[in-house]
Order: sequence, then C-alpha cells, then structure tokens
Amino acid sequence: MVRWLTAGESHGPALVATVEGLPAGIAVTRAEIGAELARRRLGHGRGARMKFERDEIELLGGMRHGVTIGGPVSIVVRNTEWPKWDRVMSPDPVDAEELAGLGRNAPLTRPRPGHADLAGMQKYGFDDARPVLERASARETAARVALGTVAKALLQQAYGIEIVSHVVAIGAAEVPPGTPPPVSLAAVDADPVRCADPAASARMIAEIDAAHRDADTLGGIVEVLAYGCPPGLGSYVHGDRRLDARIAAELMGIQAIKGVEFGDGFLTARRRGSVAHDEIEPLEGPGMRVRRSSDRAGGVEGGMTTGEPLRVRAAMKPISTLSRPLATIDVATGDPAVAIAQRSDVCAVPAAGVVAEAMVALVLAGSALEKFGGDSVEESRRNCEAYLKSLAVR
Amino acid sequence: MVRWLTAGESHGPALVATVEGLPAGIAVTRAEIGAELARRRLGHGRGARMKFERDEIELLGGMRHGVTIGGPVSIVVRNTEWPKWDRVMSPDPVDAEELAGLGRNAPLTRPRPGHADLAGMQKYGFDDARPVLERASARETAARVALGTVAKALLQQAYGIEIVSHVVAIGAAEVPPGTPPPVSLAAVDADPVRCADPAASARMIAEIDAAHRDADTLGGIVEVLAYGCPPGLGSYVHGDRRLDARIAAELMGIQAIKGVEFGDGFLTARRRGSVAHDEIEPLEGPGMRVRRSSDRAGGVEGGMTTGEPLRVRAAMKPISTLSRPLATIDVATGDPAVAIAQRSDVCAVPAAGVVAEAMVALVLAGSALEKFGGDSVEESRRNCEAYLKSLAVR
Amino acid sequence: MVRWLTAGESHGPALVATVEGLPAGIAVTRAEIGAELARRRLGHGRGARMKFERDEIELLGGMRHGVTIGGPVSIVVRNTEWPKWDRVMSPDPVDAEELAGLGRNAPLTRPRPGHADLAGMQKYGFDDARPVLERASARETAARVALGTVAKALLQQAYGIEIVSHVVAIGAAEVPPGTPPPVSLAAVDADPVRCADPAASARMIAEIDAAHRDADTLGGIVEVLAYGCPPGLGSYVHGDRRLDARIAAELMGIQAIKGVEFGDGFLTARRRGSVAHDEIEPLEGPGMRVRRSSDRAGGVEGGMTTGEPLRVRAAMKPISTLSRPLATIDVATGDPAVAIAQRSDVCAVPAAGVVAEAMVALVLAGSALEKFGGDSVEESRRNCEAYLKSLAVR
Amino acid sequence: MVRWLTAGESHGPALVATVEGLPAGIAVTRAEIGAELARRRLGHGRGARMKFERDEIELLGGMRHGVTIGGPVSIVVRNTEWPKWDRVMSPDPVDAEELAGLGRNAPLTRPRPGHADLAGMQKYGFDDARPVLERASARETAARVALGTVAKALLQQAYGIEIVSHVVAIGAAEVPPGTPPPVSLAAVDADPVRCADPAASARMIAEIDAAHRDADTLGGIVEVLAYGCPPGLGSYVHGDRRLDARIAAELMGIQAIKGVEFGDGFLTARRRGSVAHDEIEPLEGPGMRVRRSSDRAGGVEGGMTTGEPLRVRAAMKPISTLSRPLATIDVATGDPAVAIAQRSDVCAVPAAGVVAEAMVALVLAGSALEKFGGDSVEESRRNCEAYLKSLAVR
Repeated sequence: MVRWLTAGESHGPALVATVEGLPAGIAVTRAEIGAELARRRLGHGRGARMKFERDEIELLGGMRHGVTIGGPVSIVVRNTEWPKWDRVMSPDPVDAEELAGLGRNAPLTRPRPGHADLAGMQKYGFDDARPVLERASARETAARVALGTVAKALLQQAYGIEIVSHVVAIGAAEVPPGTPPPVSLAAVDADPVRCADPAASARMIAEIDAAHRDADTLGGIVEVLAYGCPPGLGSYVHGDRRLDARIAAELMGIQAIKGVEFGDGFLTARRRGSVAHDEIEPLEGPGMRVRRSSDRAGGVEGGMTTGEPLRVRAAMKPISTLSRPLATIDVATGDPAVAIAQRSDVCAVPAAGVVAEAMVALVLAGSALEKFGGDSVEESRRNCEAYLKSLAVR
Repeated sequence: MVRWLTAGESHGPALVATVEGLPAGIAVTRAEIGAELARRRLGHGRGARMKFERDEIELLGGMRHGVTIGGPVSIVVRNTEWPKWDRVMSPDPVDAEELAGLGRNAPLTRPRPGHADLAGMQKYGFDDARPVLERASARETAARVALGTVAKALLQQAYGIEIVSHVVAIGAAEVPPGTPPPVSLAAVDADPVRCADPAASARMIAEIDAAHRDADTLGGIVEVLAYGCPPGLGSYVHGDRRLDARIAAELMGIQAIKGVEFGDGFLTARRRGSVAHDEIEPLEGPGMRVRRSSDRAGGVEGGMTTGEPLRVRAAMKPISTLSRPLATIDVATGDPAVAIAQRSDVCAVPAAGVVAEAMVALVLAGSALEKFGGDSVEESRRNCEAYLKSLAVR
Repeated sequence: MVRWLTAGESHGPALVATVEGLPAGIAVTRAEIGAELARRRLGHGRGARMKFERDEIELLGGMRHGVTIGGPVSIVVRNTEWPKWDRVMSPDPVDAEELAGLGRNAPLTRPRPGHADLAGMQKYGFDDARPVLERASARETAARVALGTVAKALLQQAYGIEIVSHVVAIGAAEVPPGTPPPVSLAAVDADPVRCADPAASARMIAEIDAAHRDADTLGGIVEVLAYGCPPGLGSYVHGDRRLDARIAAELMGIQAIKGVEFGDGFLTARRRGSVAHDEIEPLEGPGMRVRRSSDRAGGVEGGMTTGEPLRVRAAMKPISTLSRPLATIDVATGDPAVAIAQRSDVCAVPAAGVVAEAMVALVLAGSALEKFGGDSVEESRRNCEAYLKSLAVR
Repeated sequence: MVRWLTAGESHGPALVATVEGLPAGIAVTRAEIGAELARRRLGHGRGARMKFERDEIELLGGMRHGVTIGGPVSIVVRNTEWPKWDRVMSPDPVDAEELAGLGRNAPLTRPRPGHADLAGMQKYGFDDARPVLERASARETAARVALGTVAKALLQQAYGIEIVSHVVAIGAAEVPPGTPPPVSLAAVDADPVRCADPAASARMIAEIDAAHRDADTLGGIVEVLAYGCPPGLGSYVHGDRRLDARIAAELMGIQAIKGVEFGDGFLTARRRGSVAHDEIEPLEGPGMRVRRSSDRAGGVEGGMTTGEPLRVRAAMKPISTLSRPLATIDVATGDPAVAIAQRSDVCAVPAAGVVAEAMVALVLAGSALEKFGGDSVEESRRNCEAYLKSLAVR
C-alpha cells in the first residue's frame, strides 16, 4: 500500500509532501525533484507568479545518500514569497491590532464561481474565503509533483516503466485525431505548450494569446502515457482494485479537472463494438507473443494493464479566476458583487500534464508493488522479472 | 467510513453484497431491492439472459423488521440458473472424469479483446479464461445495485437526497445538448432505453435495432443526478477527499466504463473561462440565499457539492462480446483464432445508468456520514438539519 | 491488501464472511472449514447451544473446484435454529400484532454489565437491547474462523507457515511458566480444554466444574504461535505497519478480549534489559545462519518477524452473562433490576484460541502478501523463496 | 477518518508529522506542542541526549492565527544536532571518499538483539544497520507527540475529554493495586518518574538508580486515562470498529511496547465472572442516570466507551541498547560479536506515557469525529451535545 499526504497553503511557509510504502533503494535526487517542479511551471500563458516562484526543496525523511531507505519520504517545498505573507498566514496567533492594519488580511467575502470558496466557507464555517482558497489553490500540486518524482524513479528503476504526458487540446485548439502520441518527454517539454504536434502547438499559442487579450482564460485536455507496463497491474476482482478506477480518482482529484477518459473514452461510447476494441494478433518469433492491432482501450482491459501503452486523458476547465471577474454575492452583506480577483494565469494546461504524470506514477507504483511486493527495488524487480518469465503468452 | 465488498461469479450459486458503516434505522425492504434489480434488467437491446434472469434475494444480516440495525448489511442474490452450472462452477472439488465429460467445462482458450480474459489469465496464472470471465462479468453489478438500494434509502430518509439517472447517448444517437435533465425516475424508467427525451429515445431504439441486425453491439453515455445535496459534501483539503474524485473512482470501476465527466466536463475544457463557470446570484426572500445562473460544473466546486444538483456522466464502451467475434489467438496453441462467444446483449447502457446510480449513492452516503456523523438515521438527520440552519448563506 | 467483512446476527438466518485480496490457487474445502468451525465449539464448559449448533456452510464466491480463483471468497454459515427465530429476527417487516404475541420478541430492557447492551442502545438509539446483543454476540466469531481457514491454507501452501493455539490459563489455573509451547494442533485439540499440559488441563477442568457449580463463569488466556514465518513480515517504518500492532488490533477486536501481549509481554516489562532480550548466536553449517538463545520477544522485533516462532497471548474476561445475574437498571423504568439472562457457557476460552488463530492467520496472510506480492499461490511462493535465498544471514 | 504519517530519521535533519481529517477551529500553539515535546523528555533515567535535545518546531500547514483551518496539519521538529550528522545522514549523495573518512559512517554490522536491526537488514536488503536503526529509533515518537497535541486540543475543545497518563510500574517497582488513578496531569508531571504515588515513585527511582549502577536498563508499565468520553465511541458491529482494538493497535505500534490491556486486563482473565464486571446502578436526581459500582473494564464494553473513564495500560520492555552489550553476530563475517552500542537511556517509561497519551488521543479524535461528524469544532461540539441531550439514559 502506497499512501501519501500533502499539507500546506498557497501563501503559507511551505508545502509538505510525505509518501509511505515505497521500497528501499530508489535513486532520486533533489535536483531531479527540482527539475520536475520546474516542468510544472512551464507553459505559455502562465502568470507572473510562475516566473518568480522558485522551489526550494528540502528532503527531511526517508532518503540517505541519494537513495530511499524504506521509511516515509518527506519533501518540503518552501514558499520563497513567505516573508510577504508571514503575518497574514502566520500559523501562530498574531496580535489583532497588527492584523487590522494589514490590507492583505482583510476578509475575502466575495466568493469566486468555479472555486471552492463558497462551499468551503459553508462547510467549515468561515466568514472569509482566505482559509479556503489557500488550501484549495493549485499551488498544492507542487507537492504532488515532488512525490511523483519518487514514484517515477521507482517505476523506471524496478520495472522499466516510463511516463510521458502531452497537451492534446487548449480551448478549441486540438491535436488532430489519429496523431500518434509522443514516446519521450524531451520533445514535449521543449514545446511552449507541451504539445507534441507543432501545428497544433501554434494554434494553441494563438488561442492563449487571444484569450489573454480578451482578459479571459482557457482550459484543455492532457494525455498521460505509461510505456512498459507489465500485463496484469490492477484487477477485475473488485471495483476498487481496477487500475482505471484508481487512476480516475487521482486525476479527478487534481484541482480543475472535470473529466477523465481511458483510450478513446467518450468517443468509444459512440462506436459500434466491431470497431471499438483492440484485436489480438500473434507476433512472429520465439515464444507465444501477441500485440494489439489498434489502441482504443488505452492499454487497460478489465481494469488491468494489457502490456500495451497505458493512455488516459484529463479535461481541465478554464481557470476560474478571471481578470474580468464573474458575478457573485458579498457574503458580508448579501449584495450582488463581482468575485475577488487573485493573481492568475491565462492557461495552466501544460502544467496539468506534469501533475497528471505524478498521479499516474503514484497509482502505478502502488499497483506494481501490490502485484510484485518487495521491500527493495532489487527485490521488486526480481519478482517482476520472474513473473514476466513465467508467462505463457507475452 | 462506508465500505463494501461484493463476491460471487456470473454462473456461481449467488452474488453476495455486504456493506458496513451505515447507521441504524434505514427502512428498506426486499421488495425495494428486487425492484432495483429489475430496473437493472431493463432496456431495449438486452439479450436472452435478462429475460429469464430472476433475482432471488436473501437478507442475511444487518436488518430486522424492515430497518437496518447498525451492523453490516448482507444481501445474497441467488443465481436461478445455478443447477445448470453446479458441476462446472462447483466451489467444491469435482471428480475429474465427471468434469471431462462436460462440454461446458472445456477450457476457454481464445481470450476476447475488450475483456479481462487475456490479462486476467496472465495475472492469475490461468490457462483457461473461465475463472476470469466469471468474476469480471457485469453480472456482478447486481450486487452493487442491491447495496445502492440501501444507500439511496439512507440518502432519502436522512437528507432528502434523490438520485436519478438517464441515458444521454447510445452509439451515435444522443439527447440534444441543452435538453433539461429529468427530475424523477418514473418517466425515465417507462422509456424502453431509459431516455428522458422521446425523440432521442426513438433514435436510440433504431440504432440498437440496426446494430442487432448487423450482429454488432453498442455503448453509450449515462448521466446521474443527485437532487437535494446539502452544500459541502466532499472537500478540497486533500485530493482523495474530493467528492468528484471518489465518484469518478466508483463509476470508472464499473465494468465497461471508459470515461467520467462532471457537469459539462470535456466540453468545458474547450470553453473560455468567461462562459465556463456558474455565476452566483442572490435569491429573493428571507435570509441570505443564492442560486447559480447556469449548470456547467455539475454541482461540484472544489471537490464539494455546492447545493445545486450534482450531475455526472459515464461513457460505456460497446459490449465486447460479439456474435461476429473479434480476432484473437488460441493460448493453447498460439494460433490465430476468433474469440470465444458468450451469450450477450446488443446494448446494456440503460442498465449501466441503474448501476451508476448505485455507485453515486454509495459515495454520497459515505460523504454525508463523514460530514454529519450519526449512528441512526435520526441522529444523522438532526446533525444535517442543524448544519443547514447554521449556514449564513444557503 | 487483505480485507474482510463479516455480517449476520446471532439468531439471524446466517453469518456471511467475505475476504478480498487473496491470491488464486489456495486449496481449501468446505470440509476443512467445517472442521475449523467444529474446533470452535470445542471445550469443557460450553453450554447447550454448542452441542446442537451445527454449521451448515455454503461457499458462494471466489472458489472453483476446490481452489480460490482470485476474487473475493464468500462463506455463508447458516443458523440451524433459524426457524425458531424467523419472526423475531425477520429482516422483513412483520405484522405488529403477530409480533406482539411473541414472548421472545419482548424488548430487552435490562442491559447486562460487561456486554455491549447499554452503550450500544445509547449509541444507536434503541430502547431494546435485542439488536445490540444479536450482533455483539460471540456467535459472529464463527465467520472469522471460516475466513481464517482460508488464510491458514494460504500460509501453509505458499510459505510453509503453521498456526497453533493453546490455552495457558483458565481462571486461576495456569500452565506453569517455562513450559515449552506445543508445536502441533493435534494434541492440543484432543485435550478437553485445549491445554497442552496435562496437569494444568486437569486443574482447569476442576476450575470450570467449580465455577459451574457456583453458577459462575470463567475467562482465561490463550496463546497463538506461528511457526515458519520468514524474517521481515511487518515493518518498523510506520506505527501501523508493525506486525504486532496489526495482530494486537485483531486480537483485541475479538469479543471479550481485554489484553494482548507478545512473547513474555507484561512480564518482560518487569525484567531488566540484560535478561529481557533474545541474544543472537551463529549456527553451525553452511551459509551464515543464526538462532536466538531464548524466546522472550515472541518472534517479533521492531514490529517484524525475526524468523523465530511468533508467540502472542490474549486475555479473555469471564463470560458476562451469568446464571446469577448482575445488578443493572431497567431502562424502561429507571428502576434497579437484574440483568437479562441469555443462554450461556461457563467458559469459552478453548474456543477463543481457535478464533485467535484465525485472526493471526488473516494478519499474517496480509503481511506476507504485502512483502511477497503474487496473484497466485505459486507466484507468491516463488517470490518468498527467492527472498529467502537472497538473504546473507538466515 | 483521521489519518497521519510521520517521517524522518533519528539523526536526520528533522521529523515531519502530518495529520489529515481534523476539523477547522482547533486552537493550538507552537508553545503547547513544545511543552508536550518537553514532557516527552521528562523522567529520571534518561540519557544525555534528552538533556541537550531541544525541539525546534515549525508549523508548515493547516494552521492560521493559532487555529486549524481544515487542511492537513504539518509539524516539523528539527534535529538540533543535525550539523554533526549532515554527511552521514545526508539525503543527497555524498562523495564516497569523503564518507570513507568518517568513522561515524562506518557500517554497523553487529545487530542489537531486541531492536529492528537484524530483521530490518534482511527485509530491506541492507548490509548496514544504520538505515534501520535511524528510522526504528524511538526519536520518531516526538512526531507522534506533536500530532497528539492537536488531537488533545480537539478532544478538550469539542467534547470536554481530558487525557492523563501515569507510570504504574518500572521494573519490579509498582504502584500498589487498588490505588486510585490520578485525575490531572500536573501532579503526575511534577514527579521525577511521572508516578502518581509518592511511595511507589521513590521505589521506582531507586530501581532506576540500581539499574544504572549495574549498566542495565528497565522497562515498565504506563496507564492512560481519558475522562469525559461520551458513551458510544467505537462500536461492536465489526472487529475493526472496536475502540479497544484501535487503541491496542496504536499502543502496540509504539516502539518497545509488548503488551496492552484495558481496565484490569490480564488480571480480569483470572477472575470469576461474578466479580469481573462493572454493575450498573441508578443515580439520584432528575433524568435517568447511571454509574458503575466498580472499574474493571476500563470504561469499554462491547468495543465502546461506556461514559466511565477509559483506562488502558501498555507494557514497555527494557531498553534494548545496553552499555553492557548483548551477544550477536557480525554480519560482515558471521563471527560471534557483541552488539553495537548506541547512546541510550536507562529507562524511558515516563516518556512512554506521554507518547501513549498522544496515540490514545488520536484514536479518540478519529472515533469521536466518526460518531459526531463536523468540519469545525463548533459543528462537532453541537452534534455531540445534541446526542447527549437525546439519551434516555445517561
């Protein structure tokens, strides 16, 4: 069982990410975690914060001399802007008079549509949206990306699994259907919107620039691929053992995600059965080996990896904080109002792909450890190899 | 914490469904469970099995005199065809010679694309797909529907929440965008494909008939609505506390579901922010009350119910077992082959809506009990009412 | 993750036990489950119910032809006395007039000290102890024993682990300190109180007979041993990964258990460090092998098996239902009263050992699968063997 | 669901403690957490480390202006000795040559009996005990105590529950049976061994001094009490819902704990039923109120609080690291050896009480939130009060 907790607020001192249940012997460095966090800040259309946000990383537990040692891994990502916020977001009590003088501390009473603000205030009994939006903010995804770095290292080192994400749509600009997915991250990351198709990328950039001019925002769709999965991760034996169910939960659990689909997903629902599945054909060569003649299922059948690339998409809604704010009420008065404005991006879809990679990696790590066991990378790899060798059909 | 386990195989003696964590005092009867199971067999395009399948229900635990008593509720749904299968699916050892003479017991060695067959055999080390398909079969959803009946009764009796599902697409036939969703089940269930729009229903039926003529199958899209949810079920504080994440897991965990979206989901990803969210407007009358001027988010913001109707869709792939079978290999020989044929439906989308209702109900029940606590319906209702009364903004 | 749910009431139609997460290929039969259930009825001092209680077992899921197939295993244990209770404990509504005429249905309003009765009525809002005592009854342990049978079969078949329990104290009659524990169940089960020491057994029987004459009851202490555990089950890396923590939870979760200790437990707390631990000494022969020169820790260090026999004790309080009932109040009136009397045993300690075996087996099965993974007995065994072979020190 | 993770090693940069699932509005300060950590360092017989260990605390998440805000609370406890260890325990890779020159970095190859050392090395595949003992060390309990501070604040502020621990035995020196337990912490904490009985305290101190002279160590027994619990926390409906089972897991999950008992525990197992339970008697005054005429059950019946004080004991083995080390082998050579010596205390029982308080508080917090729900202290308190008011019998 791999489990994790993140903590921390958007303008608090730091984010804290802890993951428990990973084996010993995963090689991972602060530099690699930093590189993943930097990837999360990528993308045409990000606002000012992304430019000056720098992630200062501390590894406080579970690592020694560059490898995991079996205990919980804990990563702290400092907020470099903290000095500006240390009164307003102080965890310790602050003198009421001092606070009263701080404009930044004024209660936020005009909840933003599309955000957790209003329901969060109702649920927790706040008359200020500040404590809600601080935790609900997408800043928290930095903690997930940090954890995902460790999970990815395990997947690669123990099982040879590689995770790649790319952007397939921003607003109305989409990668044309049938475009083959990228197989490595390098080219994707080099693109300003993390799109593997240059023509589509150009359209996406134009879309972002247009939205920016109109003081508007954009969402889009990201796709995550996992190459090299052995067959049989996840299971059909119970609903909550299905790999697709677990991945769907983690992707839908990312801020602003409103939809998840595997393979051709919603498109498949519109097809007939004769052209909706991936037929099995024998492969030449020694042993009994097979391949699929198409990829419609996204590499998952019966809630299990088939051995084909796993492919899953997540739909991100447009950023809810607009420079031209939406209608709301002021909960201090009940009067109609416009929503509070917070500094924001035009489009964060490229970053969402990086976050989605992390979540897919964490789920796959858990499912692989469930199948193969092992308290060290070596032990888990040995068990995986013995399994693959034992298969009558590969 | 509400948790449940189902057990049983498609042609085994029975399905067993157990749910733990529900309060005492939920009124529910065998007749109601039977009625829900009958709803699951509804729908134009179901095969022969649905016609003669009759669900014999036993309540073995957790109920007394028509109400739950706090302990785990266990429901057994007997397989009325069991006598035909009692040798082939016997849990006890059966004499090898006796089995050898039974055609029905011959190993199934031609795994069906789109099913758990091949990956399941690899995972569990079987050379016969029988043990895989028996558990992976959608017959298991009857157990979920039985549990969902109890969850729905709780939602209604403690919080006044009503769950409705309807079919919005079968193959290419869809309910036109903008059609208002149904508010009660009666009309939906009266339609042959559980579609609330008569014109769309007629197109869906035609689609099914055409697929049937072509020995083909169809998938589609179902939508589940929950009316009357209090604001604040679920939470933004951690990814796995988000209500949408939990519902996504349970819907994606249903056999044949390949996609899940909340509100306008994938469509929202293509919109601009200025027209993607649900603005908040004050309501006339006493107290501070609000409504939303649109429903794009599906009643969920920040992973919480907003108080507006919850709305979620699931995409079902076409049934994978075709009368005109797909290409595969015979794992006994490695030769190309056509997939094993099992009795099957043309389209099971109307039933998928009923199953999806059950899963949404179970998740909502868990989230409501998490928020309101309570070991009896009365205690949980009292806590919910006190919460609603305490809200500054409703 | 191995998880299980039991359902059912003492006088309800049946108990239902479902376990999820076990691999395919465990050989187990109804006869073996029946034999374990019969062991649970053993013991001098059991009341009338144990004599006529016969356990009619159905396997409703997860088994085919005598082996598990990977899905949840569900076992139903029928209540052969059900016809006597089918009105009073009917899950369906029963006509009020019919119930009014049944003495057996009269509300139980004099809660028994030592039982769940009073707090259960308060918690769930009942004015009758019936629904509480029906579920709180130790009859439910039959479901656990059924599940434990499957877990034991896995432990034996995949890892060569054998579980043995025996009684070490009944009331004041104890096995003398320093007596070596039994290594097989046969001799233990042949003894009327499941005690491995004949002299102590005689004293225990005398103790029971005396208590019986005095219309009193007795508790005692049972010890469970697990032979053949590989080193490294459980872990020190997090409190809830400790094997002793997990076993303690399951043993304390058995009805009437008030204490749990590993190895010399409470006695060790009174020793000095120099004589409280198990020194490590090299073993002759090829390879680097070790043994311990004592067994004080019960085979667990740092929350992990050491490879020595696991040894844990559970303290059972005397049965709380007495023929000479305890003082209580009548909750219908508030008046002082004597507690309701239910048919009862003088002493159920021998049976508690059998239940404790089941719980230890279920925890060990989960911990072994966590370490070794594997979806079939063969795969898990292969991984365990490779691990043992890899150890520098055995 | 309240869940927590701790991370960090004994000589690593810090411990990290994160708890998720607590409501908003719990008032708690760094000073209070620091005071609890200081209590954990109390006690005659602690070694040098406790004297110079100072806990530098950071609150990195979940708190604002002195109250919790609903998100995960994360507390970092810095290791003030870190500069001495920053090469040996560096999470980042360190130059091999630099390490080779550090005596402190030499592999620890003589595993200590009574510690996780040997089984940990086997499990995780280490040839050095360093990574094992760093995480298995009792230093980690500081993280638990930090979390327990928040849980205690919730219990007090929402439900009026107070937690008290005291030492009842150190080695052979025990508080005489029948001594009434303390009702407040102040007097206990003022005693050098946290014992509420002055005469017993003197004997305990003498015992520690004697052990110290003999270069030996001591264990003992602590008792935790919870005053003010409402009836009905925990449940009999499933083994793992029992409050005693959950508390047993958490107490047995503390380093060095080998036994747990509720109320009179193992002593009760030796009593007859007529004198083993707590009879119920009516209380004078308005309403139907009851009390118990004895406290043998420790305030728990049927796995639920009865409303009487909860009382549970934990047995701690003597510290396993001795100045006069135990026999072991050198795993680098296979030769007999004496165990590695680490700086250590003579007796840590007084501290174990503080840790045990924390674990009991965390479990009670989870069980109370399960029963009463509530996302703010105010909401949970309101629900608890409504429940208490609704009880026919108090």
